[in-house]
Amino acid sequence: MRADPAAELEARRRLVETALDAALPPESAWPATIHRAVRYSLFAGGKRVRPLLVLAAGEAVGGHTTALMPLACAVEMIHTYSLIHDDLPAMDNDDLRRGKPTSHKVFGEAMAILAGDALLTRAFHLLVDMPAQVPAEDARRRVEAAAILGEAAGTSGLIGGQVADLEAEGCPDLSANELERLHRAKTGALLLACVRGSGVLSGAEAEDLVRLERYGEAIGLAFQVVDDILDATQGAAQLGKTAGKDAAAGKATYVRLHGLDGARRIAASLRAQARDAIAPLGARAALLDALATLIVDRTA
Amino acid sequence: MRADPAAELEARRRLVETALDAALPPESAWPATIHRAVRYSLFAGGKRVRPLLVLAAGEAVGGHTTALMPLACAVEMIHTYSLIHDDLPAMDNDDLRRGKPTSHKVFGEAMAILAGDALLTRAFHLLVDMPAQVPAEDARRRVEAAAILGEAAGTSGLIGGQVADLEAEGCPDLSANELERLHRAKTGALLLACVRGSGVLSGAEAEDLVRLERYGEAIGLAFQVVDDILDATQGAAQLGKTAGKDAAAGKATYVRLHGLDGARRIAASLRAQARDAIAPLGARAALLDALATLIVDRTA
Repeated sequence: MRADPAAELEARRRLVETALDAALPPESAWPATIHRAVRYSLFAGGKRVRPLLVLAAGEAVGGHTTALMPLACAVEMIHTYSLIHDDLPAMDNDDLRRGKPTSHKVFGEAMAILAGDALLTRAFHLLVDMPAQVPAEDARRRVEAAAILGEAAGTSGLIGGQVADLEAEGCPDLSANELERLHRAKTGALLLACVRGSGVLSGAEAEDLVRLERYGEAIGLAFQVVDDILDATQGAAQLGKTAGKDAAAGKATYVRLHGLDGARRIAASLRAQARDAIAPLGARAALLDALATLIVDRTA
Repeated sequence: MRADPAAELEARRRLVETALDAALPPESAWPATIHRAVRYSLFAGGKRVRPLLVLAAGEAVGGHTTALMPLACAVEMIHTYSLIHDDLPAMDNDDLRRGKPTSHKVFGEAMAILAGDALLTRAFHLLVDMPAQVPAEDARRRVEAAAILGEAAGTSGLIGGQVADLEAEGCPDLSANELERLHRAKTGALLLACVRGSGVLSGAEAEDLVRLERYGEAIGLAFQVVDDILDATQGAAQLGKTAGKDAAAGKATYVRLHGLDGARRIAASLRAQARDAIAPLGARAALLDALATLIVDRTA
């Protein structure tokens, strides 16, 4: 039994910060500019939702924090690279991210592109860079987790979703199915990979893996629905990024398709689905459950 | 004994083309634009020097083409991603590559950035995406090769070299040491990773691995010296890309530092070093030797 899931999550968040710092070359390493740019974005105050999903999902099926940490760091690096590239003038052209100027505003476009490239490269490097004495079974699990991440980050996942998102601009009439497909790729795939990869890395039983996956699918979609709600209802100061952008870009959103109340009902229903999926895991899944609440109830 | 190394290389080049095609989703896969963009650049007529280095190095130490092919494809994908990103307006701003319009000229900047991201992601995905029945020893070698590639593609290699190259613009007074460091990172690291990764993947003995590495170091630097010579002496039609760019950008080059004859002497000396390094491997290294000639004697 956990007295305070929020405190437990905070303790793990601090472990993640330390591990991320250790996973990167120091700022002074040659050539210094790129390491400054990489660290600027990676330590810009992210909530570390994805690494926490990795740790919480692994713990729920008997995994160990140390073994899970490379994956936890890798997913955060991939998430951060995607933000840096999405913010570029050629893409979403955003000046503000987490309340700070975006990478290209500080370091210029060339360095922002390269900082994203560096984080993507380091993410995969981290997963395959293991000491020779790692037991064969652990090595194989890590490779499998890396493959799950590769699929999620690729053209049927993260990258495909961003392409579809760019192409959907000025298409407010996207159908509900097309919108869901887009977001399952752009946001859902990586979130799902966090819990599925973590389950695989922890040697989860097949039925527990299915539970994690059902949780991950629900939470992945909920994340985007809440994003749409926040974009429609919050100001830039609260979001730390440009608000009302989707409406301005004429994008289809859950709020536009289902109305604000409808979108809120969808988020609540996905939250319930996520809870149901992991209920059989019992108390071990307390952090996963707390994360679902955090994702749905967040205000930024 | 091989009668005709050129024909042998051509036969392997065709195998590489087939493997690259099979390693990518079809153009029609959702979302189609990104797959068109990825294939446009990957099949734009590259000479496949890096995949051929992988295959030739592996063969020289007893490796098998089938086992080497994922690495061969991965290095070409990483090379192609780096070209797409380097050509972007924010970087080298090139309109022409291999005689064809660059990716951003055809698909726009956003799609070019994403096509590069997709190739980088797919490269690592390919290396870790292996069937469960792969023997543990082979799986471990593949992981080690992936880690070698991760290092070479990262901020101490490919990406670091591009950063240093951008920062060297307008610095014609770069010292010979600084210039060599830049090119060892930007061009040499990936070429070295081709032969080192291939050696590891093939289970090469330690002393053969050292031979491949010495070859790779020499050939990596020779590649760049020849690039500088060609940039100074050839026209755009022959190069398939903008010529005389380095001089125009005020960049330090081997030609600027050592003169045209000096640069040619350096290239010839590196060619000899490469040949000496693999001489003990005997006839098995015939293709590696032919590749060294191809790299130093190329005219584009």
